[in-house]
Amino acid sequence: MSRFYRKRNKAAGLPPGTPIYIGSGEDLPARITIIDYGPDDFQQKEAACAEDCFFYKDTPTVTWINIDGLRDVSLIEKIGKAFHLHPLVQEDIVNTYQRPKLEDYRDYFFIVLKMLEYDEEKQHLGAEQVSLILGPNYVISFQEKIGDIFDPVRNRIKEAKGRIREKGADYLAYSLIDAVVDNYFTILEKLGDRIEGMEEELTSNPHEELLHRIYGSKRELIFLRKSVWPLREVVNLLQRGESPLVSESTGIYFRDAYDHTIQVIDTVETFRDMVSGVMDIYLSIISNRMNEVMKVLTIIATIFIPISFIAGIYGMNFSHMPELTWRWGYPAVWLLIIAIIVGMVVFFRRKKWI
Amino acid sequence: MSRFYRKRNKAAGLPPGTPIYIGSGEDLPARITIIDYGPDDFQQKEAACAEDCFFYKDTPTVTWINIDGLRDVSLIEKIGKAFHLHPLVQEDIVNTYQRPKLEDYRDYFFIVLKMLEYDEEKQHLGAEQVSLILGPNYVISFQEKIGDIFDPVRNRIKEAKGRIREKGADYLAYSLIDAVVDNYFTILEKLGDRIEGMEEELTSNPHEELLHRIYGSKRELIFLRKSVWPLREVVNLLQRGESPLVSESTGIYFRDAYDHTIQVIDTVETFRDMVSGVMDIYLSIISNRMNEVMKVLTIIATIFIPISFIAGIYGMNFSHMPELTWRWGYPAVWLLIIAIIVGMVVFFRRKKWI
Amino acid sequence: MSRFYRKRNKAAGLPPGTPIYIGSGEDLPARITIIDYGPDDFQQKEAACAEDCFFYKDTPTVTWINIDGLRDVSLIEKIGKAFHLHPLVQEDIVNTYQRPKLEDYRDYFFIVLKMLEYDEEKQHLGAEQVSLILGPNYVISFQEKIGDIFDPVRNRIKEAKGRIREKGADYLAYSLIDAVVDNYFTILEKLGDRIEGMEEELTSNPHEELLHRIYGSKRELIFLRKSVWPLREVVNLLQRGESPLVSESTGIYFRDAYDHTIQVIDTVETFRDMVSGVMDIYLSIISNRMNEVMKVLTIIATIFIPISFIAGIYGMNFSHMPELTWRWGYPAVWLLIIAIIVGMVVFFRRKKWI
Amino acid sequence: MSRFYRKRNKAAGLPPGTPIYIGSGEDLPARITIIDYGPDDFQQKEAACAEDCFFYKDTPTVTWINIDGLRDVSLIEKIGKAFHLHPLVQEDIVNTYQRPKLEDYRDYFFIVLKMLEYDEEKQHLGAEQVSLILGPNYVISFQEKIGDIFDPVRNRIKEAKGRIREKGADYLAYSLIDAVVDNYFTILEKLGDRIEGMEEELTSNPHEELLHRIYGSKRELIFLRKSVWPLREVVNLLQRGESPLVSESTGIYFRDAYDHTIQVIDTVETFRDMVSGVMDIYLSIISNRMNEVMKVLTIIATIFIPISFIAGIYGMNFSHMPELTWRWGYPAVWLLIIAIIVGMVVFFRRKKWI
Amino acid sequence: MSRFYRKRNKAAGLPPGTPIYIGSGEDLPARITIIDYGPDDFQQKEAACAEDCFFYKDTPTVTWINIDGLRDVSLIEKIGKAFHLHPLVQEDIVNTYQRPKLEDYRDYFFIVLKMLEYDEEKQHLGAEQVSLILGPNYVISFQEKIGDIFDPVRNRIKEAKGRIREKGADYLAYSLIDAVVDNYFTILEKLGDRIEGMEEELTSNPHEELLHRIYGSKRELIFLRKSVWPLREVVNLLQRGESPLVSESTGIYFRDAYDHTIQVIDTVETFRDMVSGVMDIYLSIISNRMNEVMKVLTIIATIFIPISFIAGIYGMNFSHMPELTWRWGYPAVWLLIIAIIVGMVVFFRRKKWI
Repeated sequence: MSRFYRKRNKAAGLPPGTPIYIGSGEDLPARITIIDYGPDDFQQKEAACAEDCFFYKDTPTVTWINIDGLRDVSLIEKIGKAFHLHPLVQEDIVNTYQRPKLEDYRDYFFIVLKMLEYDEEKQHLGAEQVSLILGPNYVISFQEKIGDIFDPVRNRIKEAKGRIREKGADYLAYSLIDAVVDNYFTILEKLGDRIEGMEEELTSNPHEELLHRIYGSKRELIFLRKSVWPLREVVNLLQRGESPLVSESTGIYFRDAYDHTIQVIDTVETFRDMVSGVMDIYLSIISNRMNEVMKVLTIIATIFIPISFIAGIYGMNFSHMPELTWRWGYPAVWLLIIAIIVGMVVFFRRKKWI
Repeated sequence: MSRFYRKRNKAAGLPPGTPIYIGSGEDLPARITIIDYGPDDFQQKEAACAEDCFFYKDTPTVTWINIDGLRDVSLIEKIGKAFHLHPLVQEDIVNTYQRPKLEDYRDYFFIVLKMLEYDEEKQHLGAEQVSLILGPNYVISFQEKIGDIFDPVRNRIKEAKGRIREKGADYLAYSLIDAVVDNYFTILEKLGDRIEGMEEELTSNPHEELLHRIYGSKRELIFLRKSVWPLREVVNLLQRGESPLVSESTGIYFRDAYDHTIQVIDTVETFRDMVSGVMDIYLSIISNRMNEVMKVLTIIATIFIPISFIAGIYGMNFSHMPELTWRWGYPAVWLLIIAIIVGMVVFFRRKKWI
Repeated sequence: MSRFYRKRNKAAGLPPGTPIYIGSGEDLPARITIIDYGPDDFQQKEAACAEDCFFYKDTPTVTWINIDGLRDVSLIEKIGKAFHLHPLVQEDIVNTYQRPKLEDYRDYFFIVLKMLEYDEEKQHLGAEQVSLILGPNYVISFQEKIGDIFDPVRNRIKEAKGRIREKGADYLAYSLIDAVVDNYFTILEKLGDRIEGMEEELTSNPHEELLHRIYGSKRELIFLRKSVWPLREVVNLLQRGESPLVSESTGIYFRDAYDHTIQVIDTVETFRDMVSGVMDIYLSIISNRMNEVMKVLTIIATIFIPISFIAGIYGMNFSHMPELTWRWGYPAVWLLIIAIIVGMVVFFRRKKWI
Repeated sequence: MSRFYRKRNKAAGLPPGTPIYIGSGEDLPARITIIDYGPDDFQQKEAACAEDCFFYKDTPTVTWINIDGLRDVSLIEKIGKAFHLHPLVQEDIVNTYQRPKLEDYRDYFFIVLKMLEYDEEKQHLGAEQVSLILGPNYVISFQEKIGDIFDPVRNRIKEAKGRIREKGADYLAYSLIDAVVDNYFTILEKLGDRIEGMEEELTSNPHEELLHRIYGSKRELIFLRKSVWPLREVVNLLQRGESPLVSESTGIYFRDAYDHTIQVIDTVETFRDMVSGVMDIYLSIISNRMNEVMKVLTIIATIFIPISFIAGIYGMNFSHMPELTWRWGYPAVWLLIIAIIVGMVVFFRRKKWI
Repeated sequence: MSRFYRKRNKAAGLPPGTPIYIGSGEDLPARITIIDYGPDDFQQKEAACAEDCFFYKDTPTVTWINIDGLRDVSLIEKIGKAFHLHPLVQEDIVNTYQRPKLEDYRDYFFIVLKMLEYDEEKQHLGAEQVSLILGPNYVISFQEKIGDIFDPVRNRIKEAKGRIREKGADYLAYSLIDAVVDNYFTILEKLGDRIEGMEEELTSNPHEELLHRIYGSKRELIFLRKSVWPLREVVNLLQRGESPLVSESTGIYFRDAYDHTIQVIDTVETFRDMVSGVMDIYLSIISNRMNEVMKVLTIIATIFIPISFIAGIYGMNFSHMPELTWRWGYPAVWLLIIAIIVGMVVFFRRKKWI
């Protein structure tokens, strides 16, 4: 449940801008990786301490500093100080219950993204916060856990694949955001399979368990939606290219990422429509089943109750019941019973119940 | 299901702008057709290789290059290079899971459309991606399969019908887009017939199968909607005529196409309303049926259970049951039974059940 | 059904701007009526051929040319040529499946309206297309059939009632549009009566037939909505008075017409709310009925099944059943039965079922 | 029903701007009251005829002319002429089926409001139209009936309470509009009580009658909404203070009135949400009741039908039924019956039905 | 109920701007606390009377005047006069049924907030109005009751924690608003727990009581929404920093508060979606239960009614019933009965009912 709302500083009452780690990341020491590159240079190293990064702030080459693990708040504060990050930015980096957003601090952009993971067993979406600082010639990325989502970008830089080595920090930021968005499509595919499974079950034999799966899908879609809608605004701001931090030629790439974001949103909305369609059909099928059950009951009861009554009549012990002694009394009763059965069957046929 | 969401590059991790074919087109060699025309000239030929097209880039006449089949990515790349298409454009042409969009690259427009096909047997909508490049005096169109939807335009150019030969590349692009939009009306007609069929079944004898048809129609409408809504924005951008690529006099034609797009959207929304209306009525009819079934059961049971009880009483074997030896005991029981039946019938009449 | 979507040119493949009649008007020869007037002049005549109208194009007086019947496409083309109408306008005049719209061609406005007719017997709305050309000092109106809706305007011109003779062509256009809008109120009144009838039936005795009437009303409201919503935009454009074709003083009148259009839309939305309210209540009443039916069945069955069982017990033929020979056995059984009935009645009272 | 849509001029075909009374006001002679005041002056009198008012048009003091009763159209026309009111304004004053609106005629504002009355007995909202003309130094108000809603304003002027005597005609208009808006809160309170009553009934014992009350509330809320939403726009236009007719210092008061209008709208929307919530819960309770009824029936039937069958078996008259002559046959049957009852009760317990 | 709509002045008819206390605060004497501080100064005292505050109006240091208890209207008026507050502001401070709003009076902002309290026992949200006056170097806050929500801010000033002592009155206002918004997260957490509890009950054993809890949650969410939506606009106005009252550097903090407000709104909307999801699932479970109940009834009735009929037949007392004297008649009947039971069981298996 807690993933649905922002956690407050437990030690409420602290002044705003006081960074305190709030999240569910594992308690590991932070890992700092520095990648520094230009069209012809490439250098990658692990930093032992925060101070190792400061040097790269003013180099003309593009520098990507990646920090995995946010529990060491003092580290974040040191980096924040060196790169002149606003105290509120430092606070938001370590409070991992932010919604995706872009904040323009003139000298740098502060971007918050949500990386999603789909736990197929529990059919549950988890979110990890990824924060980016996009400066004139550096990008700092903060992740809660050590992940592999940025590996393809790292490889592209290393192997100088595509245009990434010739482009600036804005293109690097684009590559990272694109990797996150790309990941959403994987999740959508899995959710799509799940919905397809529900659709198929509808036509075979729907059980009450389907109901809980429908509700589960709804929840995950609500959660997904919460992460994706604000992203649209983030990428839109980047695409518009009104800041000197994003060059015009990179703006075209952000436009592409924007297009992808819209596709993600579109698909989420489509899935919502479909899930609610599945729900409606499920309910109708239940109604139909009930109807069928009732019909069987009614047909049986309506045929047998009257004829049982007739049998009951001639089970009475009155001394004076002339029919009982008639020679053809018994066969006549059978005839009557058969007539009633036939009449009822005709009646139900007319009503199209059988 | 897959038609509902964008497929990612299977080889994720490739840099953006790397064209890889993603789609379901048949594995046929690409076919390149070149039509070059002016008010008085007309020339049509099949190009053997990509290079054959390059010559037409700078001729003053209008050139329409049509490529059917997108599996040969290197071909697309060659053309892309010759016409200075942005790598992202090349990527989007062959990744056929785009949503309709228009991207303004100053020198040319990149337009993505969805051509729809309705498989009447499966009652299923399929989509094929059509990409257009609108340059100053040329149009390049990319289709997944060899289709006949652009034949009327081809004929009009050949036979110099209407104004097409006197107008520029913008009018040619309009003609192609209009052909696509026109095709939507055919699909709407078929969907309309289907909805009408469902409405008629409602008044005759609705079966559970109708439910699945309702859900099917909903799905197709969701899909249709996804293809048509973004088209509105595309045509709107063209209609506004803010780019030198579209002349004012052609803008009027795009306004007409815009009007048609709105009509398509309108109709899709109307159909959605109708389908959900049909669903509501279906559910109510099921409720009504159930009610009727219950009434029959109740009437029969309520009449016969009490009188069976009376018969049961006089079927008891007590030694001392004075009624059994009365002379008129048996007829009196019949009278009682008839009285109960009449009473019940009156009761049900009052309740307006019969 | 077909009234819900635009019909395409049957001869698809024709170039845009080719006028072909698509509609359901009767096959009568077109009738051209010319009314020419100024503050002190008035002249009315039937034109024998299209050429009779051309003279009035440049007279300083206001001219109203009304054409009833659109099957004679060549006539429309002649007029179109004389008044310099764009080919797309000519096409739209005779393709009567347009949505209401206003197109500004600088020299003239092209306005499409929908005149509605309510067939009370079939409870079905029909639409007829009315196209207007508003030029600097003339109005050309095109109708599918010979109608009487514009008669009041004609009379006002003839008898110089109100301000119409002193005002220009814009005021004439306003009068015609106002006549169409005014007609919508008549239709709303009829629909209102129908909804009121449904509301009343709810409180008396609702039948399944009501369901089909609800669905019918929904359909007609969907159709009405489709005709009225775009009209709002049309009148809004006229009211804003940004074109020299509409004088400021007439703008005030268009503002009034706009207000009326809003009222029509408001009422349509209100009716939609009401119809769906009626539907909800109907469904709830059905549920309630079912509940009542079930209660009767349950009460009867729950009382009589146990006592029938008791009677059954003493109808068994065991040799050794001591109760059967007891002196007070039979009355005791009756006492037991009465006790059960009383107990059940008390139970149902407590549950507030009776 | 008729209150939901605009009535047309019965004598349709009259030119626009022809005032004809359409409404349900009583047939009383109009009453004209004139109040003329300044910081230190105050004068109140009843005018015998329309001409008595004309004098006040150009006095520097603020003049409030109130007309109760609109059946005397010629009176309205006289006043309209004297104060240069546009013919459309005159028409709208007496056609009382307008929606709230503000029309800016440069020299004066024409404001239409709806005064609501709640008939507690019939639980029905009635509306009376109040029209205001706000000129540079006069306000003319038109009411259908003689009402007391403006009495507090009259008193404040008379007794020079608050700032009203020091302020201009704009503040007087504000006071009148505020009185109307204030009245809405009274109505909301009554509707709120009614909804609260429905909520309480939900937890006690809901009857079908509640259904009709829910529908009734929905209708009244639809009606209220229709009157209040457009008011928002009216007050917003006044608050913005873009016209010289409204001074900046009065604009602040209109901002307050705007705030109140928003509160009214908010509350109406909240009530709508609540009423539909009540409806949902009502439906669910009905379903639950049905469920409970069915359970009782099923429990009774499922227990007694099998044991009745056993009794039936031993009521058969076969010559060769060994059990009948067994010494312990009868007690054995009872044991069997008790076993079945116990088994069934255990089964139902497990299912948590009892 | 009353918390859902604005209360009017009981003594209606008073001129606007007349402050009258309307609220539910306890009848305690007002308490005035003054905190005056600069980077190096700090002074806190309780004022005995309103006049004690006036001195601080023009000091260069930042002054925070907090008034708890609004029943003493004359006190508010005195302060209002001294700080030149508009009469409407004074009225709104003591009429505690305002919606959150910000009014810009040039020299000062008037801000209304809602402080919420969640009564866990009654599961009921209560609201207290907090009004703020933000002047150039002072903030006046008005609360209905003595509360502790601003204590952390007070402490931060006292202990010079964070930046608060170096910043101006705008930052103080931000701190107070942030404290209110922060409080919403606590309430959301509690509501979230409640919804989670409902979700869990769905999967265990849902009772009718759940229905009332769902409705209760809906109501509280409607109420919460009413308080939070307008807050968004308030904080947005502050964030935009278009007034000299808010410095640019504080604007960044307001942007953060805005972000939090959006998160609150987002979560409220999410909770609404979830609650309505829970409702849908609850209804479906009820339907499913009913279905199961009906199945049990039908299975039992359908098996036993026919075989009871057979027993009834051979309980008849006809003199001539040959079967009764057959040697194997009784076992044959048992065989027949068993055959019927087996047949029925097979039938139900096929229908997948058992």
